Amino acid sequence: MATRGKGTCEITENVGDAVEKSGIKNGTVTVFARHTSCSLVMMENAAPEARRDLEKFFDLLVPEDTPYFEHNDEGSDDMPSHIRMVLTRSSEVIPVVDGEMQLGTWQGIFLFEHRRASHRRKIVVTVMGE
Amino acid sequence: MATRGKGTCEITENVGDAVEKSGIKNGTVTVFARHTSCSLVMMENAAPEARRDLEKFFDLLVPEDTPYFEHNDEGSDDMPSHIRMVLTRSSEVIPVVDGEMQLGTWQGIFLFEHRRASHRRKIVVTVMGE
Amino acid sequence: MATRGKGTCEITENVGDAVEKSGIKNGTVTVFARHTSCSLVMMENAAPEARRDLEKFFDLLVPEDTPYFEHNDEGSDDMPSHIRMVLTRSSEVIPVVDGEMQLGTWQGIFLFEHRRASHRRKIVVTVMGE
Repeated sequence: MATRGKGTCEITENVGDAVEKSGIKNGTVTVFARHTSCSLVMMENAAPEARRDLEKFFDLLVPEDTPYFEHNDEGSDDMPSHIRMVLTRSSEVIPVVDGEMQLGTWQGIFLFEHRRASHRRKIVVTVMGE
Repeated sequence: MATRGKGTCEITENVGDAVEKSGIKNGTVTVFARHTSCSLVMMENAAPEARRDLEKFFDLLVPEDTPYFEHNDEGSDDMPSHIRMVLTRSSEVIPVVDGEMQLGTWQGIFLFEHRRASHRRKIVVTVMGE
Repeated sequence: MATRGKGTCEITENVGDAVEKSGIKNGTVTVFARHTSCSLVMMENAAPEARRDLEKFFDLLVPEDTPYFEHNDEGSDDMPSHIRMVLTRSSEVIPVVDGEMQLGTWQGIFLFEHRRASHRRKIVVTVMGE
């Protein structure tokens, strides 16, 4: 999938489709991001301002202009991306019951892009069970 | 289960019971919280002061009075709850060997309530393997 | 395995070996650290300075001399270790396809030691699938 620079991008429906196609009724679905400068988060999926607050929080928690960062091969958003990935997740595991992901009412699965430029990102979805 | 407002609440025994009832001897158990304002953490389970320090750390890392938060539909503890969830986990996966969770001596599984009021929380436990 | 005090230590190859030995071609591998003062992170595996920046970031985010920490039974690096564990992970789950872990080009799995002294650490690797 393609991202449009820094920010969160919902992938709940894509994961749900993969669960349905698998035909598996009970088990788990594992979502995995094959990257070191984007990550996955479970987040409130209704209010866009909640995601804006989240993005701003991470911008301030791991600032691009952190003076001691040595690693900046790909620019000032390089090292903060790795740390923001470490502080979130590369994988999310969600239970599946009767063919349905057991997400709560307000839970969405989001790809969190940490680079300023748009990127193509590969997500692997694995459904296990029977 | 019911929480009594902000703080950690151990669920290790409940998860262990579910593993035992499943009859599965070797595999994994996945614990999942179906919410966006509480989360799961693996934590030191012996010293209550360690959990108090943890809770205080999160109160200071994501303060309720953060001036730029836009999202406060449910009060000043609303947005901090979502961010504290993102910084911890919605799922924990623990290996099972010979019917026993492979937790270390001091590891406990905790529900981390981020809201001030008590809430009813739904946790899904999935045991996979054979 | 033995760590040499605070810092990251790559275990990708060890996990890959366990996947190969399992004979499982499609599924997931779960890596689990049985401790409360070290953890697991997925991290950029090529540039050592990226890992140094990461380690410095965590030293500053959760300082050893935090004045309000009550829990210091094992010294000033005790409580920060627990919090750094909570902010990272005790388990990582990686998909396996055709017998290969589906890590991205720059992704490595690292044990993140949070204690100053060297420690022996137990990691459990569980491969599930068929």
